[in-house]
Amino acid sequence: MKIGEVGERKLIESFMKFVDMPSGVFPPFDDTVAFRAGNELLSFKIDTFVFSTDRPQGLEPYDVGWKAITAVASDMAAKAASPYLFQCSLSLPPDTDEVDAIQIERGMSEAAKAYGGALVGGDTGEAKDGVIAVTGIGVHVNGAFVPRKNRLALGDLVAITGSFGYVALGLAAMMGKIKLSEPILSRSIQAFKHPIARIESGLALVGLGAKASMDSSDGLALTLHELASLNSADVEITETPADDPLMTFFKGNGIDPLPFVFYGGEEYELVAVFPEHVSREALRELGFKVIGRVKTPGSGKITYEGNELKGEGYEHFKAEDP
Amino acid sequence: MKIGEVGERKLIESFMKFVDMPSGVFPPFDDTVAFRAGNELLSFKIDTFVFSTDRPQGLEPYDVGWKAITAVASDMAAKAASPYLFQCSLSLPPDTDEVDAIQIERGMSEAAKAYGGALVGGDTGEAKDGVIAVTGIGVHVNGAFVPRKNRLALGDLVAITGSFGYVALGLAAMMGKIKLSEPILSRSIQAFKHPIARIESGLALVGLGAKASMDSSDGLALTLHELASLNSADVEITETPADDPLMTFFKGNGIDPLPFVFYGGEEYELVAVFPEHVSREALRELGFKVIGRVKTPGSGKITYEGNELKGEGYEHFKAEDP
Repeated sequence: MKIGEVGERKLIESFMKFVDMPSGVFPPFDDTVAFRAGNELLSFKIDTFVFSTDRPQGLEPYDVGWKAITAVASDMAAKAASPYLFQCSLSLPPDTDEVDAIQIERGMSEAAKAYGGALVGGDTGEAKDGVIAVTGIGVHVNGAFVPRKNRLALGDLVAITGSFGYVALGLAAMMGKIKLSEPILSRSIQAFKHPIARIESGLALVGLGAKASMDSSDGLALTLHELASLNSADVEITETPADDPLMTFFKGNGIDPLPFVFYGGEEYELVAVFPEHVSREALRELGFKVIGRVKTPGSGKITYEGNELKGEGYEHFKAEDP
Repeated sequence: MKIGEVGERKLIESFMKFVDMPSGVFPPFDDTVAFRAGNELLSFKIDTFVFSTDRPQGLEPYDVGWKAITAVASDMAAKAASPYLFQCSLSLPPDTDEVDAIQIERGMSEAAKAYGGALVGGDTGEAKDGVIAVTGIGVHVNGAFVPRKNRLALGDLVAITGSFGYVALGLAAMMGKIKLSEPILSRSIQAFKHPIARIESGLALVGLGAKASMDSSDGLALTLHELASLNSADVEITETPADDPLMTFFKGNGIDPLPFVFYGGEEYELVAVFPEHVSREALRELGFKVIGRVKTPGSGKITYEGNELKGEGYEHFKAEDP
């Protein structure tokens, strides 16, 4: 069978039997792989940006570099690690403009610095597609890793950073599928082109007592579903995970927010679970907004306004949408 | 200008201005990037295998995975680091057979284990070309990093592991450019398909007092030239870096060994410089064979049998051979 028919998730399952976790290295199926080096706890990650699938018209080379680093930085943040070193593998078609290649590199370097880390090296070569793999090492400055999998309790708070919806709107606008006016237009385009990984919120996870956390880059519904099902829980969404200006825009234009808010992707926001007693004020100060509650026991069901949301997101290799 | 006209080396030079070395992270332009974590010294690396440029007909999916890990393991060995954790970014065309994708993963996993490390995770997605980026973390178990750049002295010994020539012969045979008979055929094909990174020799570098070391994967002439020019030295080759059976084969068939021995690539052998007083017996026991001497001061000139060898190797993006 061709991998285009198998789909990314099934393929990853087949791959997992070749994955080994030496003692002291943990955990599998998480946003990063953590390991100890001396008295330090580090995180290690690789992520890939492919031009033919991830780069719409209008996404400039600088933005491509920025986003490639942001994806890895966001995974670090979700685990409570501070980004430290990045390296890139930059495979480009030989007819790429030199200026564009340099702008990609500049975008990567500036993003790495913006997140408190550094681009320290890499590899470049020729390919028929543009493929950027970014690898990163992060430092768990608080000494703890916040996992996806943990024991959750009935009533635990589900919180997010930022506002979902802008990124998917920005992509739709760039692809000419929707017409937006200001200020939603600029904010949406910016959210898609220049997302900012939530380092500060990530580093606050440990202090706030987060039980579980995950980067949202595969879409909010899928992220919530994965967090919930991994922990035998359900999640009831009690507040729409979009800010007021965006909800006003959706209502004013008769647009259903659901596909934009729950089924986008590439938001690079954090989705975290906190104990019920954590102060909402403290959460708010560190960039988190409570959007729902955990129900246990459960099976990964996500409900919003009385309806169950499908736990779906974008999947590579699948020819048609699932 | 298109990067196909600029060439890989010039492009890397342009990129270097975006590379940052935070304090405690070193050095730029070496086989790996080393950094301290607590009381440990670690090495960090990324390398890329591209199907359209690196995969000749006949290189099986398992071998592709094996070679992709070997390239990174060999860089670790050249710096005296022990491979520890690997992750891969596996971008494949959607019409790739599932069985082939799994064999690539198996090749990576088995190579990682063979080198004393583990494949602990990765990322997979769709691209128009097959692109495998492998990132690795190694541990400097002897507490030292053996650099490319160091102060060399007149008379220092230049040594290699293994025998050069087989890999380029194997590739030529696989591409139908040369007809070989046994036992050279099997050994050459094996050398190309299933190279073995020199972990044991790499870990012996520190104990043997190595001054400088480099992985040879861009070809022996280029590796020697880079080591020499970086250290303002010349190198005089006094012994052909190929073993007896191979030299007998070249002589018996009237084939000039030079292009195969000096201008191949992907050998994943070590090229190292040792002080003059180091026992050749000790070197031999740990897999090193002395092939020449350092002359200082110099400008990167490599001489062999009275002739100067061009410091050239394979370069991506360049449409024609240099």
